[in-house]
Parts: sequence; structure tokens; C-alpha cells
Amino acid sequence: MKQIIGRQSLAFERPVYISGYASMVGQKEGEGPLGKLFDIVGKDHFFGEKTWEMAESTLQKEVAQVAIAKAKLESWQVRYVFAGDLLEQLIATSYGLADLQIPLFGLYGACSTIGEGLSLAAMNVSGGFSEYCLALTSSHFGSAEKQFRNPLGYANQRPLSATYTVTGSGAFVLGGTSGKCKIGGITTGKIVDYGVEDSMNMGASMAPAACDTIYQNFIDFNRNPKDYDRIITGDLGYVGQEILIKLLKDKGYDISNQHMDCGIEIFNRETQDTHSGGSGCGCAAVTLAALIMPKIEAGEWKRVLFVPTGALMSKVSFNEGQTVPGIAHGVVLEHNREN
Amino acid sequence: MKQIIGRQSLAFERPVYISGYASMVGQKEGEGPLGKLFDIVGKDHFFGEKTWEMAESTLQKEVAQVAIAKAKLESWQVRYVFAGDLLEQLIATSYGLADLQIPLFGLYGACSTIGEGLSLAAMNVSGGFSEYCLALTSSHFGSAEKQFRNPLGYANQRPLSATYTVTGSGAFVLGGTSGKCKIGGITTGKIVDYGVEDSMNMGASMAPAACDTIYQNFIDFNRNPKDYDRIITGDLGYVGQEILIKLLKDKGYDISNQHMDCGIEIFNRETQDTHSGGSGCGCAAVTLAALIMPKIEAGEWKRVLFVPTGALMSKVSFNEGQTVPGIAHGVVLEHNREN
Repeated sequence: MKQIIGRQSLAFERPVYISGYASMVGQKEGEGPLGKLFDIVGKDHFFGEKTWEMAESTLQKEVAQVAIAKAKLESWQVRYVFAGDLLEQLIATSYGLADLQIPLFGLYGACSTIGEGLSLAAMNVSGGFSEYCLALTSSHFGSAEKQFRNPLGYANQRPLSATYTVTGSGAFVLGGTSGKCKIGGITTGKIVDYGVEDSMNMGASMAPAACDTIYQNFIDFNRNPKDYDRIITGDLGYVGQEILIKLLKDKGYDISNQHMDCGIEIFNRETQDTHSGGSGCGCAAVTLAALIMPKIEAGEWKRVLFVPTGALMSKVSFNEGQTVPGIAHGVVLEHNREN
Repeated sequence: MKQIIGRQSLAFERPVYISGYASMVGQKEGEGPLGKLFDIVGKDHFFGEKTWEMAESTLQKEVAQVAIAKAKLESWQVRYVFAGDLLEQLIATSYGLADLQIPLFGLYGACSTIGEGLSLAAMNVSGGFSEYCLALTSSHFGSAEKQFRNPLGYANQRPLSATYTVTGSGAFVLGGTSGKCKIGGITTGKIVDYGVEDSMNMGASMAPAACDTIYQNFIDFNRNPKDYDRIITGDLGYVGQEILIKLLKDKGYDISNQHMDCGIEIFNRETQDTHSGGSGCGCAAVTLAALIMPKIEAGEWKRVLFVPTGALMSKVSFNEGQTVPGIAHGVVLEHNREN
């Protein structure tokens, strides 16, 4: 089993490619720096639905269809879907993907879920268990605020360390035959708990998990930061970015030239009042689809380490005084010249 | 890719075995018909913790250790854990498994999660991505009532169609080399929505999903009910069992001689006041470990179709008037003579 690399990584023997992908976001994300790069931008946060939860389901439904179409497939050709969201019991996913009628594996990895989904989907294709499968996640500012903090109508004030949940969904069709972006390997994260108890500072709780996964990726693949054109975390934001760079410096790796964070890229800090940056499991997914994938496909970036990060907590765990552990799942994305 | 069978199934080319397994339950489950078969029975519902949520985490922590020990492994030899629970944002799993320090894939499939976990873990081993991995789920009566319905102190009355959430956790170590129980294949479920809106009648909402998966298993593998010694659903209970048997009869298959349900087996209907039966994603997991696995290993049952069933809903979806869709994941378990 020579594809098992080091302690936590895989380098796939049978290649896996991203054959199609799509992103859909809300109005605010459309007004941000990446606005023109998304496939669909809604006029508001509701997408024609009456509740935030149903709006989030609609995001998933539409983005799945676009991604499948862009891969030049019909939905029956997609054998499995690996999907999740932030809501309790994954209701955005359950109501969003029911109509697809594709066998479903429901996932929860907080904001790291698109990393989890891409990892499992890549194993699925590489293992010969499907010709094509779909990885997809979503988040929604309104449904997430209600779920984790307070309903929007309460007009809760957010500290500067807080991030702003992205309203968006990103979907990726994986296949074994062709694509300009190859999934070269994965480094799967463990739960990392540094004892942060402030649920309004998720960057601080997730940075140690990101550090752990990136460090392990370097060790397992015998690489250093220069082997990647970019190392892109999910939603550490400005606060978490600083911590991550410091933690990795302490371990002997300087990633300050390679590091980017989807949560930093997606909003304009000066004009959009989003404090430490964007977050939510839609954040990394839509940034991957809109910003990262095109640059890899064009060969501008040859190899990227994509590391969505999740803060593992709930209202109940917060109320019971628990810490906020983190998890981060690394996916190595490589430009594929052959196609 | 000849291991891809029909529309929704896999028959693994490289064999996968269950090398170790364990179950741990609360006091009430210990007093039920399967009481003597569990590895650990707690004296109460708290297992030494102060909250139900931490009690559920403790169940996961302890049962994982026992399963790994029974597989004659150290935890570092287990490369991945596939785990989930019913609580919002999977907090029982996050706090329960952090100490293991094994790369984690968090799963949510409501009460079908052990079927989802075994399926993904089996693909993982068969695909050559690990030598050993762990599939594990839990549920807890106290944490689930608080999550889905009302806190226990509210003394809510439960209708006769309701099921009683099992306090328990079951864990399974999968490996590619040896074991008296082989995972012969899987049939992965789609979301099935018959429009049931009564969250106190989950059997009715899950029975159509179980029917869909079992029917597809027969078609994909070209089998009929007699090809299985038992067809065992997760937690349909008495209400759901009747519906499932009728739905499959309408499709031309009579499973009344083969059907069993973990929710029916785990409690004594006459004496334990559990109405339609047990439920929760611990229910199918502990019944598999305590009752089903020993019979397969002994050769008393040569082939079992194990079909954990999940009702996909949350407090929010219920309050917003949504239906309760179901999902069911089938796992074919076979006695392995060679070991």
C-alpha cells in the first residue's frame, strides 16, 4: 500500500481530477473582491425562499446542478455525493439534495467540511468505487447566526475577532479520467484542542489545527513551503493567520510568502464590516471554485495545499463551558498539463 | 471497475473484515433483553460526568478503546476514524474522540450513521488507504431529548408511535487481513421523502428509505430475501416494521421471515415503557456489536443485510413545518469460514 504516506497522508495511486465545479453566493459576497468570479450571485440572501434554512438548501441544489453540467454529466452519472453544512442535523443538505436522488454521505467537519468531502470523494474515485462523485458544502449568514449565536433580529454586536459567515455553496465533481486540476494527495486532520474557550475567536481555535495539518503534510510528503505556490487555509481570518504563521515558524517553517486565507480573500476588510474575515463551510468552498481552481487550471499555480479549517463547537458545548477544538483537512491540488 | 454493482451498490474486490468491536450502554439498556451481551453497562446515564453530552462523549471514548484492544491493536495503528452522533455539530464525537489523536472524518446520517461509517470505513480499507480504521457512533437519551424535543425535566409525554433513544455507543475496527465477519458489500441510500411531518413517528418516515435501500440491494446483487439469514433495520420500531414489510410486499418481496429491527430487540416492550422501540445512532451500533456480530462470527447466520435507518430533521426544520425525510445505508455482513 505505497499510497499511504507518513502518518496522516495519502498520495493516490490511481489519479483523481476535478472535472467540474461551481460556486453560488449571496449579495454581500457578490459585492466583495471575488464578486465577478462566482458562477451565480443572488440578489439577496433568500434566493426566492421564505427562510434562511431553505435559502441555504436552494444554494446547494442550484450549485450542484451547475457543477454537474460544467462537468458535462447528467446527475445519474454521479454515483455518490459527499456533502454537509453547519446547521444542526445538516438540514440544509437534507432538504437541498433530496431531489438529486444520488446516494448521500452526510458530513460534518464544521468549516473544514469541503476538505473532508474532497478527501473522501478523492478516495472514492481513486479506489475504483465510482466513476464520478460530487463534494459540496454550504453556509448561510442568517441560518448560522441563528444556529450558533443569536437571530439576526436581536442585532447582536460582534467583536473584532469574530468572522462573518459566508452565504454561499461550492460544488466539485471528481472523476478518474480527465481534468486540468489533479488531487495529488490528502493530509487528514486530527482534533486539536489548545483550550480556547472564546467562540467569537474561531481563528485562534482553528490556527493550531491548521498548523498541525500543514506541518504533518510537510513531514509526510518530505516537502517544505517552497514546494507549494500557495498554502491556503479556509477561514482563519486576520487573527488566525497571524497565529498560524507564528506557530509554524516555531516549528521551523516560514509560510508567510505562501499563505493565503479564503476568509481574508472573500471580503473587503475596509468597506464590508466583516471584522476578522469570512467563515463558514461555504467560504472555503466558493473561494476554491471561484479563485483557486481557475489559477491552478491555467497553470499559474502548479501546486497548492488547500487546508479548510473547522471550529468544533455548538451552542450547548459553549453554554456548558467547553473549549473550542479545531480540525483541518489538507488537500494537495496540482496543475495537470496532460489535459 | 467490476466492484461497482448495479445502481447503488459495491462488492469489494479487496476483502474487508471486522477485526474487533465493542459496545457500551446505559443502565436501562443493560436491564433490557440484550443486557448481558454488552461489553460495558453503566450504573446510570452519566458515566461519571456532569452533563449528558459529556456522558455521551465518555461512551465514545471508552468503547473506542475496548474495540481497539479487542482487535489486538494500539490506537496509533488505526489510521482513520469515521464517527458521528445525533447532537448539533457532533459535539459528542468531537469531545469524545479528541484524545485518540487519530485523523477523523465526522459523519451525520441521523440514526443511519453506523451504516454510513461502516460503508466509508470499508471503502477505505478495501481501497488500500489504511490497514485498519474505526467506525463508531453514539446516542444518549438525555442529550437527544434535549436536542430534538424537550429537556427531561419538562416531563414531556411521548405518543405510542415514538421511540426511546438508546444510551449507548458501538465501535468497529475494520481491517483487510483477518476476521470471522466479512463486509461483502454495501448499498448506499438516497434521501427518501414520503412527506411524513410527524417527528414523533420516525418509524413511518424511515420505513420508505429502508424499503428503497433493501429493494435496491436485491436488484443490484440479484438476490431475494432468502439469500439473507436476517435483514436487520436500525430503529424502525414496531410502527415502522409493519410499514416496511408492507411496502416491500407491494414491490414483490416478502421479508417477514427475515426481518428484525434493532429498536425492537433492544428493549422489552411490555416492561420497559419504550413504546415503539429503541432509536438513536447508538441503537443499531450496540445491537450490531452485542447481538448480530457474535451470531455471524459463530456461523449461525451466514449472511445478514444490516440497514441502519435515519430520520433527517432538526428542531428548526420541524418548527418551520418541513417534512421528515429518511435515509438508510445497507451493509452486507458475511460469515467468514477461513479464519
